[in-house]
Amino acid sequence: MAPRTPRLVVPIDVKKKPWEQKLPLHNRWHPHIPPVADVKEGELFRVEMMDWTGGCVGDNDSAADIKFLDLTITHYLSGPLRVLDTKGVPAKAGDLLAVEICNLGPLPGDEWGYTATFDRENGGGFLTDHFPSATKAIWYFEGIFAYSPHIPGVRFPGLTHPGIVGTAPSPKLLSIWNEREKKLAEGGAGSLTLCEVLHQRPLANLPTGKNCLLGLIEEGTPEWERIANEAARTIPGRENGGNCDIKNLSRGSKVYLPVFVDGANLSTGDMHFSQGDGEVSFCGAIEMSGFLELKCEIIRGGMREYLTPMGPSPLHVNPIFEIGPVEPRFSEWLVFEGISVDEAGRQHYLDATVAYKRAVLHAIDYLSKFGYSKEQVYLLLSCCPCEGRISGIVDSPNAVATLAIPTAIFDQDVRPKSGKIPAGPQIVKRTPDILKCTYDGNLPITPNPAAGLLTDD
Amino acid sequence: MAPRTPRLVVPIDVKKKPWEQKLPLHNRWHPHIPPVADVKEGELFRVEMMDWTGGCVGDNDSAADIKFLDLTITHYLSGPLRVLDTKGVPAKAGDLLAVEICNLGPLPGDEWGYTATFDRENGGGFLTDHFPSATKAIWYFEGIFAYSPHIPGVRFPGLTHPGIVGTAPSPKLLSIWNEREKKLAEGGAGSLTLCEVLHQRPLANLPTGKNCLLGLIEEGTPEWERIANEAARTIPGRENGGNCDIKNLSRGSKVYLPVFVDGANLSTGDMHFSQGDGEVSFCGAIEMSGFLELKCEIIRGGMREYLTPMGPSPLHVNPIFEIGPVEPRFSEWLVFEGISVDEAGRQHYLDATVAYKRAVLHAIDYLSKFGYSKEQVYLLLSCCPCEGRISGIVDSPNAVATLAIPTAIFDQDVRPKSGKIPAGPQIVKRTPDILKCTYDGNLPITPNPAAGLLTDD
Amino acid sequence: MAPRTPRLVVPIDVKKKPWEQKLPLHNRWHPHIPPVADVKEGELFRVEMMDWTGGCVGDNDSAADIKFLDLTITHYLSGPLRVLDTKGVPAKAGDLLAVEICNLGPLPGDEWGYTATFDRENGGGFLTDHFPSATKAIWYFEGIFAYSPHIPGVRFPGLTHPGIVGTAPSPKLLSIWNEREKKLAEGGAGSLTLCEVLHQRPLANLPTGKNCLLGLIEEGTPEWERIANEAARTIPGRENGGNCDIKNLSRGSKVYLPVFVDGANLSTGDMHFSQGDGEVSFCGAIEMSGFLELKCEIIRGGMREYLTPMGPSPLHVNPIFEIGPVEPRFSEWLVFEGISVDEAGRQHYLDATVAYKRAVLHAIDYLSKFGYSKEQVYLLLSCCPCEGRISGIVDSPNAVATLAIPTAIFDQDVRPKSGKIPAGPQIVKRTPDILKCTYDGNLPITPNPAAGLLTDD
Amino acid sequence: MAPRTPRLVVPIDVKKKPWEQKLPLHNRWHPHIPPVADVKEGELFRVEMMDWTGGCVGDNDSAADIKFLDLTITHYLSGPLRVLDTKGVPAKAGDLLAVEICNLGPLPGDEWGYTATFDRENGGGFLTDHFPSATKAIWYFEGIFAYSPHIPGVRFPGLTHPGIVGTAPSPKLLSIWNEREKKLAEGGAGSLTLCEVLHQRPLANLPTGKNCLLGLIEEGTPEWERIANEAARTIPGRENGGNCDIKNLSRGSKVYLPVFVDGANLSTGDMHFSQGDGEVSFCGAIEMSGFLELKCEIIRGGMREYLTPMGPSPLHVNPIFEIGPVEPRFSEWLVFEGISVDEAGRQHYLDATVAYKRAVLHAIDYLSKFGYSKEQVYLLLSCCPCEGRISGIVDSPNAVATLAIPTAIFDQDVRPKSGKIPAGPQIVKRTPDILKCTYDGNLPITPNPAAGLLTDD
Repeated sequence: MAPRTPRLVVPIDVKKKPWEQKLPLHNRWHPHIPPVADVKEGELFRVEMMDWTGGCVGDNDSAADIKFLDLTITHYLSGPLRVLDTKGVPAKAGDLLAVEICNLGPLPGDEWGYTATFDRENGGGFLTDHFPSATKAIWYFEGIFAYSPHIPGVRFPGLTHPGIVGTAPSPKLLSIWNEREKKLAEGGAGSLTLCEVLHQRPLANLPTGKNCLLGLIEEGTPEWERIANEAARTIPGRENGGNCDIKNLSRGSKVYLPVFVDGANLSTGDMHFSQGDGEVSFCGAIEMSGFLELKCEIIRGGMREYLTPMGPSPLHVNPIFEIGPVEPRFSEWLVFEGISVDEAGRQHYLDATVAYKRAVLHAIDYLSKFGYSKEQVYLLLSCCPCEGRISGIVDSPNAVATLAIPTAIFDQDVRPKSGKIPAGPQIVKRTPDILKCTYDGNLPITPNPAAGLLTDD
Repeated sequence: MAPRTPRLVVPIDVKKKPWEQKLPLHNRWHPHIPPVADVKEGELFRVEMMDWTGGCVGDNDSAADIKFLDLTITHYLSGPLRVLDTKGVPAKAGDLLAVEICNLGPLPGDEWGYTATFDRENGGGFLTDHFPSATKAIWYFEGIFAYSPHIPGVRFPGLTHPGIVGTAPSPKLLSIWNEREKKLAEGGAGSLTLCEVLHQRPLANLPTGKNCLLGLIEEGTPEWERIANEAARTIPGRENGGNCDIKNLSRGSKVYLPVFVDGANLSTGDMHFSQGDGEVSFCGAIEMSGFLELKCEIIRGGMREYLTPMGPSPLHVNPIFEIGPVEPRFSEWLVFEGISVDEAGRQHYLDATVAYKRAVLHAIDYLSKFGYSKEQVYLLLSCCPCEGRISGIVDSPNAVATLAIPTAIFDQDVRPKSGKIPAGPQIVKRTPDILKCTYDGNLPITPNPAAGLLTDD
Repeated sequence: MAPRTPRLVVPIDVKKKPWEQKLPLHNRWHPHIPPVADVKEGELFRVEMMDWTGGCVGDNDSAADIKFLDLTITHYLSGPLRVLDTKGVPAKAGDLLAVEICNLGPLPGDEWGYTATFDRENGGGFLTDHFPSATKAIWYFEGIFAYSPHIPGVRFPGLTHPGIVGTAPSPKLLSIWNEREKKLAEGGAGSLTLCEVLHQRPLANLPTGKNCLLGLIEEGTPEWERIANEAARTIPGRENGGNCDIKNLSRGSKVYLPVFVDGANLSTGDMHFSQGDGEVSFCGAIEMSGFLELKCEIIRGGMREYLTPMGPSPLHVNPIFEIGPVEPRFSEWLVFEGISVDEAGRQHYLDATVAYKRAVLHAIDYLSKFGYSKEQVYLLLSCCPCEGRISGIVDSPNAVATLAIPTAIFDQDVRPKSGKIPAGPQIVKRTPDILKCTYDGNLPITPNPAAGLLTDD
Repeated sequence: MAPRTPRLVVPIDVKKKPWEQKLPLHNRWHPHIPPVADVKEGELFRVEMMDWTGGCVGDNDSAADIKFLDLTITHYLSGPLRVLDTKGVPAKAGDLLAVEICNLGPLPGDEWGYTATFDRENGGGFLTDHFPSATKAIWYFEGIFAYSPHIPGVRFPGLTHPGIVGTAPSPKLLSIWNEREKKLAEGGAGSLTLCEVLHQRPLANLPTGKNCLLGLIEEGTPEWERIANEAARTIPGRENGGNCDIKNLSRGSKVYLPVFVDGANLSTGDMHFSQGDGEVSFCGAIEMSGFLELKCEIIRGGMREYLTPMGPSPLHVNPIFEIGPVEPRFSEWLVFEGISVDEAGRQHYLDATVAYKRAVLHAIDYLSKFGYSKEQVYLLLSCCPCEGRISGIVDSPNAVATLAIPTAIFDQDVRPKSGKIPAGPQIVKRTPDILKCTYDGNLPITPNPAAGLLTDD
């Protein structure tokens, strides 16, 4: 018998560009992006992935690359993979594709990642009205642990996962997406209240040929033009899974994806060493390149058997998943509450987004008393294994959201107690080890050493 | 040395009315509701509580009491308690009150509870547009476990907690509450989109003298009139804690409450044997009478030291808490995703409430395939130890929410697998044991035996 | 419907003696001790129990009661209970009795316990050669937590359980017990090596009429004489369960006991608020009075179906159990290794007892560096939720045993680190709050204030 | 900044022999085996290791290689590594070496392992008197999971760990080892009772030049002869750590090893994909090749500060460790009790080894009712993540040991319940997929297809 080493289906060379890879990547959802390889039900296979930007962000002390990042490049995905059953028959629309994540991790030799916030003018984040500048923190991995020179005093085990696992949409599903998001982008949805709160961020990102990469479809051909103009952006999670950014989709978990096109056309990407619920800073996990070891099962007819449409179309479904058995174990949590009253004191009606925003701000203010800058805590809460809960959603008019942070990630006791919080030495300790910051371009990047992480202004 | 039996500070006789109790209860928040007793920092004391309706809901097979419940009675609270330090000096505004929940449980001899949904015309719930009728399920306790004759085939350990723990507001905080909620109720908030989705529910519940109970304040006196007209309703959680309905506030947890008035004036109530995140059916935990064994610590000046105001007033703060060490342990979870596209297919912008609604509907549809009626699953997800997460809140335009359900609560395997879901015998099994339903009044209550739980129509 | 309050089957009045209770207790195993009550399959019932000594140990600062305790009294058990199925037919020999522990706890009004070591001349303990004197520490309960004035600086949630749950032996099983233990006591077993190590302790405790209590059997009658001379002592765990002292037999667990006599004749006692694996100090849990809420199921023929005899007789079986879902959760453990080389440096062959002894001594020595006396740590390791593991049992000649201690029970960081262990203030802190010790008899009891717990010499 | 890829300190080529590796391996403990490399405090480094036999056991359907394995080869270790502090000063005798296991796993391309029992004539195992023949099961890895064609119906996540982590002994410690083990081997220890129980196994394995491999020491030289005749065998765990076979020494754990010689001379080996407490079948983990990613810290003087000698020499110490945060999580356990009465019905005095043996036999008998052969269960309990506890060690004369098995590893429900255990189809299902077995030598190897795993007779 031969050892069951996973078959390498999509190899990545991190020194090459996304379009130079042996199997070219793609950064849009479309039924006509052709599969780059086949995988068989039951076989263990390995998919490698670039980080979501395809290598645009560097392991350095400058946030310039984040500030000027063109978001039309997002996200470089590996695949699509056509899934066949043991007899070679492809998965069919209406099936359910069970994908077990048997293992995953960073790519050997590339064991680092970054967490960042975009500039308000360039994508922003959940708290862009509070933190309008681009910032970046680098993380290094020591096996299962991550630490950052830019956020000293924390170290935690990763709950590593892919931000994106998805199947290709059918033409019909794609048109549903484009239609509903266009309606929103054009301002017809009437939900401007929250938009005002999170002002300056685009409501939706519609199809665009700019920086569009379509795998085996050659750029500039009429087919490329057609697909590029229709293909959905990868930013939101949708009915096909996609960029769900669910931190618990880690080792040993199993996701059940609806199949919309023959072969399923499975794509993956956006690997995260760790992420907090909500991924609040937007570029907010510990973003990295990485690999997945996967095993697929086709549940024939399973979409009809198990998923009930949630809207007017039979395609309005969502994935299901099972959590794996090796999540990091924490026993002590400090939990911050938030209610749906915004920072202006205005009452919102059962709005969990506003409540969660307030819980996150609450935690940032609190933890910044322990020697961190608020920017550091914002990045930390975006990428550490914290849990965001919808605790109460019926007690009009206040939704209650909670943010639970494992206290073991800190090297100091951050619980409230009698007396003053010890100040001086700790704040000194939290200042970054890196006092000089270089940016070898012509932009006037100046680091903010007092803040303990890198900003662009 | 004498054994440290907790001192019984507030006794309850469940056979008496809320206003007949030895220490009368209250159902409003106001700084001038006088304390009924003193407790000392460090001492272990016991507070008993009626269920939130003060005994209006019966252990029977009819949902009539839920259908006609007058919501102006909510919630009957025990207290307020004045908290003194070891030298007898009361807690002061600006302090932080650490309340450790050393133990809790149902009242001996009253080991049962109920989960219900209100009628659309009378309060409704998170999914009132889908489930407009009043329903009720009774739960019995076997020590740490609960089971229901109305939802057969499930049994789970309780993550028991008080729905309400709060301190009294100051006059200033009270007026902030009344002002912002009035503004919302009058429709000035512009968040009507979600209101339309959750149509028919009141936006906010403003002060009313109807059914107002104010503890030691005698009804009908001018003082009573004044307070009753100002006092805040207890329905939403707010800056003082209150009806946060956080399921993790269980045995061994510690909540840090801001103190707004001298003595803190701590009140508790709304005991839940178990609740799911969100408490989606509104009367949605396993509601019961119960007791708390508490220990307080006063952190002098802690509100200023630890809490940063989140709005224009220094009173815009929120509690913090630590999770206790004995939560029920589950290792296998089935997780349902939802995105912020509503059931009409309309796209909402990063709306976690819509996403969570879709995740809950997703789970209800799914589990109803295993022999339950949708009404049964709605009640079950409201009260079983399921977790509601804000998984992604930045990937425009879709918020992603997830609902994780521990599979061990079911007596059958509810995971997706190849082949058909076994049907007949299981559905038969899930029909309620109770086929007759009595209502000894003059209302034409008819149970719905096929549904497996009690409805009013 | 009536609430399902557990039926009180065996009430206890802790102010009365074991033989004065409404249903008299018993302290021996014998098939002819008659049941004091019946319980039905499926019903929830409550059994109350005295502490194992029947009230001989006081909540005071003296170890005199431990020093002079007569061990022939052990253990006062509640029951036996005859178990009937739903049709009233008793359990039969050959059945399996599934006993679910739905709830348990201390008796209301008696919320305290004690941990002690016996004098070398009077029972000793696992480390009697190192700690020959009687000592005692008192614990008080604050809901789920315990703390001791005699061992300051630790506080932990209890993993509360009954030390003893057992069914009555058949005459044949009883004679097997008496025969094999007599053989050992008479020294014929050849296992004197370990006995020498644990010298001074009795090898086995044979039947004796002294202090024998036999429930409904009247003392002094010929029947009493006969039974008293045959009845097995309750000290060791055996085929019927009995004094297994398994700390994980807590809330929500289920034990499957073999049935040897008609009716099963279930007895319980020896309640422990908390215990470490091994219960090393012998009187070593936090001993208390308490209650159990139980539910029984009879698995007809289950003994034959599930249990295979492990010896020459078909009665050589052992119970099975399932662990409950609400054990206290700890994430950080400090673990001490021990190998089967004894303190004299002598090599033993794969002897897990010697290895565990060394692991416990290792932990005692280590923790005593943090301001505790060794006597304090010995008692602490006996009663806190530490885990004793047989890690390696095949690597000749060394068995490897480990003792894992949750670090969260300490109010200081006890992990090894660079630099000296902070000394003075901590040691001062660990001295007991109680500096005076009273013993109101004529024995010259002198406490050892420096040690921080009470000794008899 | 450069990514922090761990530095590869000891590379392994599994196609080469132990003595052909770039840095030659060693299979004995001796202070004079020279370090093969240096590592620095704080750096992350990688050590690769062969399986403990150096490649003698094949991925095939025959147990012949196990039957004829020469145990004098054990265990091939990587190292020794000299540990320097950040200034280049080596660790010194009396220091404590903190070794953090940041990551570990199988070697890429070699993702398989085996579990075996030796023949009674060749090493045996914990239950050699019951299972005298050599058997072997192959395991394949799917990321974090393992499954075996020889034991169908189980699959579990690995709690992967090195069986051996140790420092070199000093000459004095080495002579203590040799002396005490020689005394035992010569039968002077008086502990023959247990030996009779576990008859046929060698009491201790004394130094021998046969198959001795000493790293950089050239074979045949006088120095080789001297060291080979003195060097301790690696089979037992001892004061230096060594073959402790502690299953919890996994990802994220930290072991504190005493330093006996300058440089510490750290060696590692015997990688286990998974192991049960006790490793009962002796070759009993899932044995594999693998890698460790380690980080060291030198705690100067820490041996004296933290470890107290447990015997006549100051060298009688033992390691301490901390458990890591990512152990597989199981919530349901079936637990088997054992008492210190042996299979002949003979009573032993507080003998935890006998009690654990009975608990293991109990579990084997029980699980074999679910379609497995007893040989299959014996191997399974040796390598799956089961926990062996010393539950009671003071209740004369019975020690109580328990073996807890996570029920989630089985694809069927193995809990006791009313009615017969479903038989036919399951037993059929458990027969191995592999019905043919080849052995391309001249030994008459015949597989036992009915048993579902490979035996030699």
